[in-house]
Amino acid sequence: MKDFFNVVTIEQALAFRSGFSEMEIETVPLMDAFERVLAEPVAATENLPDFRRSTMDGYAVCATSTFGATESNPAYLTVKGTALMGETPDFSIGTGEACRISTGGMLPDGADSVVMIEHIETLDATTIEVYRSAAPGQHVIEPGEDFFKDEILLADGRRLRAQEIGLLAAFGRNTLRVYRKPVVAIISTGDEVVPITESPSPGKIRDINTYTLTSMVKACGAVPVSYGIVRDNSESLYQTLSLSLKTSDMVLVSGGSSVGVRDVTIDALSALPQPRILFHGISISPGKPTILAMSQNKPLWGLPGHVVSAMIVFLKVVKPFIEHISGVKGLSGQTIRVPARLSRNLSSAQGRVDYVRVKLKTVDGKLVADPILGKSGLINTMVKADGLIEIGLNVEGLDQGEPVEVALFN
Amino acid sequence: MKDFFNVVTIEQALAFRSGFSEMEIETVPLMDAFERVLAEPVAATENLPDFRRSTMDGYAVCATSTFGATESNPAYLTVKGTALMGETPDFSIGTGEACRISTGGMLPDGADSVVMIEHIETLDATTIEVYRSAAPGQHVIEPGEDFFKDEILLADGRRLRAQEIGLLAAFGRNTLRVYRKPVVAIISTGDEVVPITESPSPGKIRDINTYTLTSMVKACGAVPVSYGIVRDNSESLYQTLSLSLKTSDMVLVSGGSSVGVRDVTIDALSALPQPRILFHGISISPGKPTILAMSQNKPLWGLPGHVVSAMIVFLKVVKPFIEHISGVKGLSGQTIRVPARLSRNLSSAQGRVDYVRVKLKTVDGKLVADPILGKSGLINTMVKADGLIEIGLNVEGLDQGEPVEVALFN
Repeated sequence: MKDFFNVVTIEQALAFRSGFSEMEIETVPLMDAFERVLAEPVAATENLPDFRRSTMDGYAVCATSTFGATESNPAYLTVKGTALMGETPDFSIGTGEACRISTGGMLPDGADSVVMIEHIETLDATTIEVYRSAAPGQHVIEPGEDFFKDEILLADGRRLRAQEIGLLAAFGRNTLRVYRKPVVAIISTGDEVVPITESPSPGKIRDINTYTLTSMVKACGAVPVSYGIVRDNSESLYQTLSLSLKTSDMVLVSGGSSVGVRDVTIDALSALPQPRILFHGISISPGKPTILAMSQNKPLWGLPGHVVSAMIVFLKVVKPFIEHISGVKGLSGQTIRVPARLSRNLSSAQGRVDYVRVKLKTVDGKLVADPILGKSGLINTMVKADGLIEIGLNVEGLDQGEPVEVALFN
Repeated sequence: MKDFFNVVTIEQALAFRSGFSEMEIETVPLMDAFERVLAEPVAATENLPDFRRSTMDGYAVCATSTFGATESNPAYLTVKGTALMGETPDFSIGTGEACRISTGGMLPDGADSVVMIEHIETLDATTIEVYRSAAPGQHVIEPGEDFFKDEILLADGRRLRAQEIGLLAAFGRNTLRVYRKPVVAIISTGDEVVPITESPSPGKIRDINTYTLTSMVKACGAVPVSYGIVRDNSESLYQTLSLSLKTSDMVLVSGGSSVGVRDVTIDALSALPQPRILFHGISISPGKPTILAMSQNKPLWGLPGHVVSAMIVFLKVVKPFIEHISGVKGLSGQTIRVPARLSRNLSSAQGRVDYVRVKLKTVDGKLVADPILGKSGLINTMVKADGLIEIGLNVEGLDQGEPVEVALFN
């Protein structure tokens, strides 16, 4: 048996990200940019809005014309015209004057506020009574109030949500520079693994990992490519690794947990061009027998074969690497973490970080994290779970009622 | 001005969901089923696993052969052979016997547990020393331990995450019945709105809502179709509504907040076949002037024109309707809610539910929700926000430090 010769902590494992480069930059239409990662900082090219807009239906006025107006002592104003939607009024407003305006309309020169239609009465075609005093700027968006020209709107590395897409639309950014989506090759190994279309003979199981890993790669905004199932020998695996390395930006090999397969994986990885085994074992559970190698500046992973172990290593280790090469910077790709209380005592071995599957429940209006115990070969434990909690490297266990943070599956 | 003639509460608005049907059912390959909504209950067609599997590398034994074994008093076992991966051992194990086995291997008849390779020493080709007592079932997954035959795995209406996809793979479900994705038509209205490729002349603004709504429809797993910008007149809007109704399952018209446009929207909706205006106003802020109509069993929405109002109405009202017609049942489409403390006092009018944008911060290890105040025409307030908190119908306001739940944008 080859020993774990380079076991690292989770922090040391994640630090290897900096050795890999971001994807190239490509240009996409804004309509296709939702959830893509911005590859340029974007600044405001103009004031937004670039004119004084009404936020209500009513009358644009000079606020001073309404000072002191009440129900019993209204202000009388002369209506000079209507601000048509999308047009510049061709008249201005002075003291004692008003202009009909709709939500989104442009205020005429001289007007500094809007009186809501609910607070006036029409006396005749050109006269209104105003019952309330307007404050300057009331129901108005000033030029630049949303964004000023040259202000930085979004930084490089931001993953674009609906609101960021809207913001870019507001500034007329019809195309954008974004990082190319990484292509991630997925390879299953194991002489006991058969395609899901086959009925497994005794001793064999269907290939689950190709399906879970494909889904998780999609959830990261990357492009999965499945290379199917490879037999447990170095030559077959080397051939498939070489091929996948040509057409992808990262390679995931799952099923290397048993001694024999792990050796096969190490041998095949070591035969690639300029190979480096960066680590071989992480002090986490489940997921210890994880391998990270590098060839041609691309990361290649040996993941555990047990479905739960492979999923947890993906979420905790592989996903941060995918986000790194996807160009994500700052917090925009972050997993959502929810504070909760632990429903029971949990023990843990020192010297490793434990990830425990939990289901969230609400008890007396408070969130409770209920551990789902079970072997890492049982997918039912992941189906029942909402997320993971962490028991730290030097912690012997957690007590019932202790505060924990649940990293949600999302 | 036409009054709000049928203002409903948010609960009443959501109750109208039951009047709309789910999409038809279609069959898709499992590889394309990630995030789709299952349209059939799925039961286990066999035990999973259907044989006794090892979870470790080591030796399969009868536990009784090892009882009382220690470092100083090991048990001596005869190795009868090797359980090859993916194969049924052609021999059985009795007391005093053992079989080499890898993680995932099938135990031979007679063996009930596995001794880890770390806890044995090889004496010669057919003899091992065992240093620890094994419990029956140790390092073994029993047949049916993950799922028993005929157990219900997943219910109709479940949105499929990576683990559910893996579960279905384990049972060889190569194709699945799922609900068709709803097609959602998006129409912008407003004489002041121009396509984002145009440089807006004074008084005009670019069409933001088409882009934010398209992104949010995608995030719901539905298919957005943009019908562009329609001028503020009933005939143009009627023509576009008729066309979009033919090719979609739901229609969103944004920009109907100002009096004139609202009337135009109501008139155009009323001219459709078998029209029903279900409500015209919701007691929420922002988002009061929201219209829901029905024609040919399809929901048609009149959304506010202000970008923030339209986004909040989408998240709080439209999204639950999209999930309903998408077939989602139970909690599987739920927005993630995070408990936090409010950073400042907030006032609110009684008689309406207020949705306030907040940014989440961590202060002294606890989550704090920091309100982002600003007019609902300002998209910067959504860009800065992480989610929404709610101030209830009959609540006058919230105090600094009060517990709140933040519905995350996700």
